Amino acid sequence: MKKLKTTRRKRQKQKSKLGMAPGSLVFTGKQKMSEVDISVLKYSENGCDESSPKSIDEVITILNSSENVTWVNIDGLHDEKSIEQICTFLGVHKLSMEDILSIGQRPKLEEYNNYLQAAIKLLSLDAEEDTIDYEQISFILKGNVLVSFQEKTGDIFSGVRTRIKEAKGMIRKRGADYLLYALLDSVVDHYFIIIESFSEKLEDLETELLDNPDQNSLNKLHALRRETLLLRRSIYPLREMVSKFEKLEEPILNSDIKVFIRDLYDHTIKVIENIEVLRDMSSGLIDLYMNSASNKMNEIMKVLTIMSAIFIPITFIAGLYGMNFVNIPELQYRNGYFIVLGVMLIVLIGMLIFLKRKKWI
Amino acid sequence: MKKLKTTRRKRQKQKSKLGMAPGSLVFTGKQKMSEVDISVLKYSENGCDESSPKSIDEVITILNSSENVTWVNIDGLHDEKSIEQICTFLGVHKLSMEDILSIGQRPKLEEYNNYLQAAIKLLSLDAEEDTIDYEQISFILKGNVLVSFQEKTGDIFSGVRTRIKEAKGMIRKRGADYLLYALLDSVVDHYFIIIESFSEKLEDLETELLDNPDQNSLNKLHALRRETLLLRRSIYPLREMVSKFEKLEEPILNSDIKVFIRDLYDHTIKVIENIEVLRDMSSGLIDLYMNSASNKMNEIMKVLTIMSAIFIPITFIAGLYGMNFVNIPELQYRNGYFIVLGVMLIVLIGMLIFLKRKKWI
Amino acid sequence: MKKLKTTRRKRQKQKSKLGMAPGSLVFTGKQKMSEVDISVLKYSENGCDESSPKSIDEVITILNSSENVTWVNIDGLHDEKSIEQICTFLGVHKLSMEDILSIGQRPKLEEYNNYLQAAIKLLSLDAEEDTIDYEQISFILKGNVLVSFQEKTGDIFSGVRTRIKEAKGMIRKRGADYLLYALLDSVVDHYFIIIESFSEKLEDLETELLDNPDQNSLNKLHALRRETLLLRRSIYPLREMVSKFEKLEEPILNSDIKVFIRDLYDHTIKVIENIEVLRDMSSGLIDLYMNSASNKMNEIMKVLTIMSAIFIPITFIAGLYGMNFVNIPELQYRNGYFIVLGVMLIVLIGMLIFLKRKKWI
Amino acid sequence: MKKLKTTRRKRQKQKSKLGMAPGSLVFTGKQKMSEVDISVLKYSENGCDESSPKSIDEVITILNSSENVTWVNIDGLHDEKSIEQICTFLGVHKLSMEDILSIGQRPKLEEYNNYLQAAIKLLSLDAEEDTIDYEQISFILKGNVLVSFQEKTGDIFSGVRTRIKEAKGMIRKRGADYLLYALLDSVVDHYFIIIESFSEKLEDLETELLDNPDQNSLNKLHALRRETLLLRRSIYPLREMVSKFEKLEEPILNSDIKVFIRDLYDHTIKVIENIEVLRDMSSGLIDLYMNSASNKMNEIMKVLTIMSAIFIPITFIAGLYGMNFVNIPELQYRNGYFIVLGVMLIVLIGMLIFLKRKKWI
Amino acid sequence: MKKLKTTRRKRQKQKSKLGMAPGSLVFTGKQKMSEVDISVLKYSENGCDESSPKSIDEVITILNSSENVTWVNIDGLHDEKSIEQICTFLGVHKLSMEDILSIGQRPKLEEYNNYLQAAIKLLSLDAEEDTIDYEQISFILKGNVLVSFQEKTGDIFSGVRTRIKEAKGMIRKRGADYLLYALLDSVVDHYFIIIESFSEKLEDLETELLDNPDQNSLNKLHALRRETLLLRRSIYPLREMVSKFEKLEEPILNSDIKVFIRDLYDHTIKVIENIEVLRDMSSGLIDLYMNSASNKMNEIMKVLTIMSAIFIPITFIAGLYGMNFVNIPELQYRNGYFIVLGVMLIVLIGMLIFLKRKKWI
Repeated sequence: MKKLKTTRRKRQKQKSKLGMAPGSLVFTGKQKMSEVDISVLKYSENGCDESSPKSIDEVITILNSSENVTWVNIDGLHDEKSIEQICTFLGVHKLSMEDILSIGQRPKLEEYNNYLQAAIKLLSLDAEEDTIDYEQISFILKGNVLVSFQEKTGDIFSGVRTRIKEAKGMIRKRGADYLLYALLDSVVDHYFIIIESFSEKLEDLETELLDNPDQNSLNKLHALRRETLLLRRSIYPLREMVSKFEKLEEPILNSDIKVFIRDLYDHTIKVIENIEVLRDMSSGLIDLYMNSASNKMNEIMKVLTIMSAIFIPITFIAGLYGMNFVNIPELQYRNGYFIVLGVMLIVLIGMLIFLKRKKWI
Repeated sequence: MKKLKTTRRKRQKQKSKLGMAPGSLVFTGKQKMSEVDISVLKYSENGCDESSPKSIDEVITILNSSENVTWVNIDGLHDEKSIEQICTFLGVHKLSMEDILSIGQRPKLEEYNNYLQAAIKLLSLDAEEDTIDYEQISFILKGNVLVSFQEKTGDIFSGVRTRIKEAKGMIRKRGADYLLYALLDSVVDHYFIIIESFSEKLEDLETELLDNPDQNSLNKLHALRRETLLLRRSIYPLREMVSKFEKLEEPILNSDIKVFIRDLYDHTIKVIENIEVLRDMSSGLIDLYMNSASNKMNEIMKVLTIMSAIFIPITFIAGLYGMNFVNIPELQYRNGYFIVLGVMLIVLIGMLIFLKRKKWI
Repeated sequence: MKKLKTTRRKRQKQKSKLGMAPGSLVFTGKQKMSEVDISVLKYSENGCDESSPKSIDEVITILNSSENVTWVNIDGLHDEKSIEQICTFLGVHKLSMEDILSIGQRPKLEEYNNYLQAAIKLLSLDAEEDTIDYEQISFILKGNVLVSFQEKTGDIFSGVRTRIKEAKGMIRKRGADYLLYALLDSVVDHYFIIIESFSEKLEDLETELLDNPDQNSLNKLHALRRETLLLRRSIYPLREMVSKFEKLEEPILNSDIKVFIRDLYDHTIKVIENIEVLRDMSSGLIDLYMNSASNKMNEIMKVLTIMSAIFIPITFIAGLYGMNFVNIPELQYRNGYFIVLGVMLIVLIGMLIFLKRKKWI
Repeated sequence: MKKLKTTRRKRQKQKSKLGMAPGSLVFTGKQKMSEVDISVLKYSENGCDESSPKSIDEVITILNSSENVTWVNIDGLHDEKSIEQICTFLGVHKLSMEDILSIGQRPKLEEYNNYLQAAIKLLSLDAEEDTIDYEQISFILKGNVLVSFQEKTGDIFSGVRTRIKEAKGMIRKRGADYLLYALLDSVVDHYFIIIESFSEKLEDLETELLDNPDQNSLNKLHALRRETLLLRRSIYPLREMVSKFEKLEEPILNSDIKVFIRDLYDHTIKVIENIEVLRDMSSGLIDLYMNSASNKMNEIMKVLTIMSAIFIPITFIAGLYGMNFVNIPELQYRNGYFIVLGVMLIVLIGMLIFLKRKKWI
Repeated sequence: MKKLKTTRRKRQKQKSKLGMAPGSLVFTGKQKMSEVDISVLKYSENGCDESSPKSIDEVITILNSSENVTWVNIDGLHDEKSIEQICTFLGVHKLSMEDILSIGQRPKLEEYNNYLQAAIKLLSLDAEEDTIDYEQISFILKGNVLVSFQEKTGDIFSGVRTRIKEAKGMIRKRGADYLLYALLDSVVDHYFIIIESFSEKLEDLETELLDNPDQNSLNKLHALRRETLLLRRSIYPLREMVSKFEKLEEPILNSDIKVFIRDLYDHTIKVIENIEVLRDMSSGLIDLYMNSASNKMNEIMKVLTIMSAIFIPITFIAGLYGMNFVNIPELQYRNGYFIVLGVMLIVLIGMLIFLKRKKWI
């Protein structure tokens, strides 16, 4: 229930932009009171320099002074002024700025005159691990500067950051385009965790359903299917986006990066295929549930029918001789009672044979 | 029920054109007795001038005298004469005129020799909020003149109008092609409200179904699915239409507008994806309903079977000793009654153990 | 049932061609004894001349003497000789002739060296209005001559004929290619009537199903789905056909006709989309039926279970004190009967509370 | 059951090739002890000459001496030596030879350096008419020589043979490419018979299901669906194959044959569309069955519930006054019995009204 | 259950790579303590030379000294050093090395500057034959050297090895590209065994379901469907991969190999089509199960209803005359008992006629 409300709230925010001019800069997510976190990482093959500027002005100073690859990471989108300031400095189109601030974007990659804009969804499991958190991350790549905009704080890029600082792999030897690839790759890697967790839940549900299907597991299965649908919608456009990324030409993208993007594309396809398998599997579980339920029903009905079939006729016989007519000859027989008991036994055995033949017992 | 009849009525109108020559100008919607509302908005970077001409003749005078971007909005399609007059003035093809008047059009965009014709469906929730109102809006874009034809009165373009008057955003600096984009964009923005409302209804239905599924919620779900189908049919062709819009060349479309249309295309895809999700979700609810119903049935049957399994055998025993045979030895036993009560208790406990093992209680 | 047999008969006819050479001229429809009806309409911008030749020889004379657009309409395909004669005169390929005579064609359009062949299905509701009649109409367009071949008599082209005679619209100013377009358009317009009628039937069925689902409405729904399938098969290839039509080049097709064909294409897509909606809606009704039926079952079972749950225990108690043991102490109590009645009341109330909690009553 | 085993046997044969080099010549079908039947038909516009050579050597002699179109038909694939001999003579690639001998091929058409290889499935209804026989037919077309390889004896090409001998149609005036078309066309014509028979079975099943659905008709329906699936798999690739055929260039294919292949393509599409309709219809029948079964269940349950609802309460009343308490005042009333009968009648009427309102009776 | 855990374990391994740089060389499969098995096969048309080097150094020595086609097979991926050594020697990209070591790859084929990398899944039935083992096999093709990397020991390529040693077929006359084709072909051939085994299981399940559907066969069917889904995911990308293989140009691929790859492509399509048929068939079985279960239910309910319908009314009559009213006139009749027996018989016959008419008996 909690999730439903959250979703509704988000949409109300998004609705509120209706009627405004395209390119109006309004952050459509939840407002956060905390400061915007800015971190700048400047590196070349020879060294790397990290700093945490307090304002965009400082960032611009750094960008102006540097020839090296520079990665500016901005945590928190609620300070629209700052974001507009840095975007204006980089010559970013109004529509791009709007996309950065509007959190309901589909994953996409747009090539503008002299820069590249990318948006992707970062998925993370909620603390209670029952729903997925969707966070939008946008990138502006211009020359050797990459700016990343995160909706929420939380350093999901720490792996990449460490690789840069410790000069692991080839990241220090490459440009900002490789950095963009590395960041996208680390986001896509996170998808596998989500899919992992969904697969495990499905497997648990499968065990539950095979064991003892009840309304509760059905509801859980339904919720999982629903989440899979939303997940699918968020990830599906990724294929197109990475494919577009691969097709970019120099100077935006160095041609020796393409082999990495091809690899990223491969991962993306794998994610999508896995989601499709999740979908098919949960449909399979629905079928299994349906059939199991109808099996249980059959079993219940069998018991009811067996009980009825055995006792209804002999109960009738008992009722027959409970009648109070003055003249029921059988009642006067010495062994009447025992004869009737015998007849009842014969009826009972007959019913059992009948049921045996029907393979119900 | 009411809606069904409305739909039927509409179709009867459309049918009535059968057998006429292509290009015959007959308005196929509901006739309205009110006057046709015309408004003209002429603007350039420096200023903006609004007027409400009473006749098409006045409009033509304005168009002849103006070099600026001019937006003519015509509310109401029932005055076929007026529409023919303005179209003829603009050199519009007979088929285009027919399309403007015939309300059953699919969203489409056609490039003619020297003008562009577009049609789109404006969706709005009915007052009682149970069905969707479909209104057709057509556009003729020729040079710096844009004529919009609305089926019904009701200023859904007030947002755009305000932006022009107050010179918000970049609208005053651009041509009529940007105006067309802005109007289409505001229509597509309306779709999100509909989808919003559908999502909320689905969520409410989900809660209802999880809580207490009955025929009423099933009927509501069915109606929602039906509406989704119709919605989908109206919106699906939009993808192709916007894609065609994007591919237009100068002079009809300035190349710097393309980035906006790409954005519009993105919104369109998002609308379509959301409709698909609605569709999948309502299918999921149907499955949930089905399974919940069969669960409830199982529960009902269990109660019936438990009651029967427990009482049928002991009722038989009671019937047995209700027989009136002269010689039933047990009846003479001092403690016969208590022994029988004991036997009944044993049978009852046996049944309970049996049911327990079946996990039915 | 009647329809099934008709279908079977038709197919036996078609089968009978098996093993013959391609291009063999055999009419595969039902033989009709009546004469073949021929009508010729010759027209230019200045005038129009109608005649009803008795034989193909006369037609050929007219064709030889005329420079104007000439439309030859042949009603009835059973006179293979005549058809061969006119086709030979026009230089039509053997395969085209075969296609004209063989009524099981898919809608198609083939461009031959110097002429164009088209086939389309004319659909009409049967008199009893329970099935659809499929009639094949073929066209040969060569220069300014258009020959149309109808399987059955019945002037479905009367609308076009009138427009020519009364010089309505632009038809008299255009060539035979426009005439072909106009005829195809009038056939496609007929499809909307069929779809109309199907939609109405579906709506009636929906009302029936929501009201009181029974086997009869199920059977009607099934028949409707079946008809929709067949309808879909007949209309689906139309898309490809009209698309091919649009792509034709001069001299077969004047370039100023293209805008009309684009319009026809639009109508075709609309027909197909409507059929898909019909399909989805009837699937939705099947689901609704299923769920309604299981709801009704639940309700029935509830009543049974409630009755049983209430009466089975108290009937047992009554049976208990109907036993004839000599020593049943309770039987001797002054108020034994009333105490037992009280106990029964308590049991009854207990069951009612239990059922109330289960929300069954 | 019988069919299942046959299928299994076939596959075991095919399996036995595993691990061999590609191009190994092993016939994977059932071994037949009979001789291989060879027939040679040599024809030109002026005459036609048929012979039945005993060995491949004789065939080669004929081929060497002839300039005319020559059709060599080889019935039976078990004599691998002979097939290798003729293939080697024609310069056929090892892989082609393997494909000819390996009976599990998909329909396909491969263009090699100087010849064309085609494979197609001939379908025929089994004698008992319950399953379909799949026979593979391969063709090698090289210049004016066409060699056809049939898996089983049985002259399915007699129609074509007769047309050649009797110089019917245009076959004698055309080359070996037309002959290939004619043979493929006659195979595709056979598909219509199968589809015919399936449609009839479906219609019979429909009548059965509407009349009295039982497990037997369900099993028949299931078997039919299964066969349709296999049929579909065999015929589906045909589309691609014929489309490839049409795209061939001279000198392999004379351009004036293309119009015929287009016609063949049309037939192929029609076959595939019909199979899709069969598929959809059998799915529709499954739904119908499901719903009919649940209707029957509802009816059964209604009867049970009506019986119970009417008799359970009055049986309880009867039981009540069958108790043996010493003091049951009502029992002493003169008219007690008649009053109770009246009460029972009132209860019964009450129940009937209740059931009437529920619309169950 | 066992399988589920295995799957989970595998994924946990794969997860452990998260956060590492792309191109990090970590084997993601199960660690094996055994030695890595290396075998080298060097061959030309004239001879063939097999050896089992102990270290990669020896392999490099062989590669350096040889001009012939050389096939290096490496069994076991856990020795990351060795694999890196040989890859570095061949100039293989870091990403390729990573793909070789990371076992969760999709089947793929990547063309690098001067070599070709391929990955494919080898499927084998588990010893207990209840699940499928997925093993990844990677290939590096560079000039006339082919290196194959197998995850597990077990010579599945023995067939190809034998053909080389015994100079069977044309393998000795061709280059390393043909060898790659031959190895891929032998892997695809293995797929048919899996599909074979699945088909047989489905057929057994079908027999079971037609005979006596129970929860156990349902669970087996569900497991089979699940496996089919996973199988499909592993094999589906093969189509694209082989298609890419076919499109390669010289010098990587000799043009005379293309005809073989086309054949391989055909096999791949056949595998995929068969999997689709498996999928459709198992869906068909689910439907069959559902309908069979509801049939059984109907039968059970019929018996219950028949028993109830017959006995409930006459039991009521018996109860009626078991009442102890002082004045029940019928009880005093001489033949009262026999008359009541007669009435019961009439009621019974009436019920039987009613049931007969309902076709329930």
